[in-house]
Amino acid sequence: MARIVMKFGGTSMAGIERIRNVAARVKREVEAGNQVAVVVSAMAGETDRLVNFCKEASPLYDRKEYDVVVSAGEQVTSGLLAIALQALGVPARSWMGWQLPIHTSDAHASARIEDMDGDSLAAAIAGGEVAVIPGFQGVAPGNRVTTLGRGGSDTSAVAVAAALKADRCDIYTDVDGVYTTDPRIVPKARKLKKVTYEEMLELASVGAKVLQTRSVGLAMKEKVRVQVLSSFEGAPDGGTLPGTMIVGEDEIEGNDMERQLITGIAHDKNEAKVTLTQVPDRPGAVASIFTPLADASINVDMIVQNVSHGTGQTDVTFTVPMAELARARDVLERARTDIGYDRLVHDTAVAKISVVGVGMRSHAGVAAEMFKALADRQINVLAITTSEIKVSVLIHEDYTELAVRVLHTAYGLDAEDAA
Amino acid sequence: MARIVMKFGGTSMAGIERIRNVAARVKREVEAGNQVAVVVSAMAGETDRLVNFCKEASPLYDRKEYDVVVSAGEQVTSGLLAIALQALGVPARSWMGWQLPIHTSDAHASARIEDMDGDSLAAAIAGGEVAVIPGFQGVAPGNRVTTLGRGGSDTSAVAVAAALKADRCDIYTDVDGVYTTDPRIVPKARKLKKVTYEEMLELASVGAKVLQTRSVGLAMKEKVRVQVLSSFEGAPDGGTLPGTMIVGEDEIEGNDMERQLITGIAHDKNEAKVTLTQVPDRPGAVASIFTPLADASINVDMIVQNVSHGTGQTDVTFTVPMAELARARDVLERARTDIGYDRLVHDTAVAKISVVGVGMRSHAGVAAEMFKALADRQINVLAITTSEIKVSVLIHEDYTELAVRVLHTAYGLDAEDAA
Repeated sequence: MARIVMKFGGTSMAGIERIRNVAARVKREVEAGNQVAVVVSAMAGETDRLVNFCKEASPLYDRKEYDVVVSAGEQVTSGLLAIALQALGVPARSWMGWQLPIHTSDAHASARIEDMDGDSLAAAIAGGEVAVIPGFQGVAPGNRVTTLGRGGSDTSAVAVAAALKADRCDIYTDVDGVYTTDPRIVPKARKLKKVTYEEMLELASVGAKVLQTRSVGLAMKEKVRVQVLSSFEGAPDGGTLPGTMIVGEDEIEGNDMERQLITGIAHDKNEAKVTLTQVPDRPGAVASIFTPLADASINVDMIVQNVSHGTGQTDVTFTVPMAELARARDVLERARTDIGYDRLVHDTAVAKISVVGVGMRSHAGVAAEMFKALADRQINVLAITTSEIKVSVLIHEDYTELAVRVLHTAYGLDAEDAA
Repeated sequence: MARIVMKFGGTSMAGIERIRNVAARVKREVEAGNQVAVVVSAMAGETDRLVNFCKEASPLYDRKEYDVVVSAGEQVTSGLLAIALQALGVPARSWMGWQLPIHTSDAHASARIEDMDGDSLAAAIAGGEVAVIPGFQGVAPGNRVTTLGRGGSDTSAVAVAAALKADRCDIYTDVDGVYTTDPRIVPKARKLKKVTYEEMLELASVGAKVLQTRSVGLAMKEKVRVQVLSSFEGAPDGGTLPGTMIVGEDEIEGNDMERQLITGIAHDKNEAKVTLTQVPDRPGAVASIFTPLADASINVDMIVQNVSHGTGQTDVTFTVPMAELARARDVLERARTDIGYDRLVHDTAVAKISVVGVGMRSHAGVAAEMFKALADRQINVLAITTSEIKVSVLIHEDYTELAVRVLHTAYGLDAEDAA
């Protein structure tokens, strides 16, 4: 017997027929002797509908009231799933965020889960009753409804799993797991059996959007074993096909001999490159650039400072999220005299390619191999950034697919034909 | 300065444009210096959509979960109205049933309001903030969401008005008040300035469905002054046209010289006539008919027992709601030997016509005048029932409109052309 949390997204909950399928999946886990809590999203499209109502009512809507409105979507699906489970003979009841309660911060529309009483929930499911919990919602001090921000249902599921000390948190999505890279670019991409929290965070933050990043961070902090699996594909017996487990490094090291040095390759076209030319090469010059950007909450990622060659001036290049480019330019224009640069040049036709893997901690040469593989294909590297388990390069976006395919092969990630 | 409750139905809340109009109406009351609580219904059609989801999920849905699902409709509109009010510069916030809280019985899907803390709500609106409250919902012991049954938002509004000791409860609907009779039948029907609770109850129970009967009963018990008025028609200055006040008799007697003996005439085609022939004329015979019907919760209205003429047998005629006819026949078939009747004859082509007015308490001859007016037009009376302030007759449904018109004129209710 295990205690598990199952989470179903909006596509899985879109209409009564699909909710019935979800109920059947939940029933199988109950019949296998497991204690189950289910976290659900709103029906696909419903949250957008409700968000649009708020925007229509006032572009400057009150986030407290927005939370009241949009949390209704998950309230509806959780009640409906409880009904569908009961119709299959499975005892079930819904638990709203304020009923459990799931305590959050009062940052309405993007609240953080702070605390939740796992014992009462554990008691509720101990008797064999399935707890159906609306994702995305909670309650702030003062008893106001909150929501966690878009995609927050993944975070809800992990929080519930943590509170329940669950053996597993199964996230049912419209993909069947985490792949070594985007299968639309590399048909030979392989589904990973296991990936570490850190790897998943790096993959998610560079564009492999299977799970909300926050939920992975929370899972890592709370040591929740998360599985990503398909809500629509099943084994021939109607059961669930195994997906990808997201786990701590301790579950991987040693007992996974076949594991590659590199786990996955991600790409991200949502960055823009900014270059400031002829910045005075003096102490404090770089700070004068990045302090005003930080003050404006603009996230700077890759930074390259050219060598000065004794001219007393240097070019500084960095990337910002595409959505922040206009604001970043505005901030830098205003700081121009202070920084003392000549021209501001920007380029949005760039892509960030990242190779990710905990294996590179103990292996030198990963970056060198990457640069060589790209150079062999005449792909120019515009900037580089690295972390303990990731190497990222910025290239011209026209080479995105080629670079991903080249690196996928170079690191031995291509699936064998038989696989 | 007055303290008022405003209630808006589903048609008034159908879409953001209409919600904005509602906000404008609320703003006018606030600007007039009033303290305001608003009770809202779900958008027109939304409750049906949610109810259908539940039925689809399981015809035998759990009423507790049904309440979770359907209460979402009012949750959405209350948040949206708060946003729309804020957009007009009016401070406002929504209060869910569980936040106030509105305590109800645990009769899910048809709960009764038991108690609510008016003081905190009064404090909330005392500072000039409008409280927006979803109608139709509350919370049962054990913190489960409840709903009050269809049309329950009127009852919510009256309950909020009672808890707040409000000066007035304004119910905005798609009609502009209570009329002496159905204006579609009698173009000369007049809008009433005032009507008593008792009269409103009698009019509502016989088919003049402006307000939910329960809400009128509660208003009477709690002495809440209720006004029915139009959500769509306004005075030339954009203000509200006065509707019909529903008040206690003390507000009418004496100071309303022009008031007619009869206040209104209602008709109801939703009754069916049942006749059992040759029932043994012995003590207990009538009980043997009506006890099994009562046990099956079938409401019997008019009852006529023919004179026996020494045959030892009599025909018994009565009416039941059309919707209960099949069940009533079933109950009576099974009780046949026990009752000992010969045949069961039913007729659905009947209509009940009622004249209602507190004035008839002090005036004899109201019924006689009614029978004479109908006889003059050769309208046959199939059954009669009376209360202190009402006389009802059952006639063939073909004569419904004629009977209503004849009685409207006979009791002097026709509006003058200039009015």
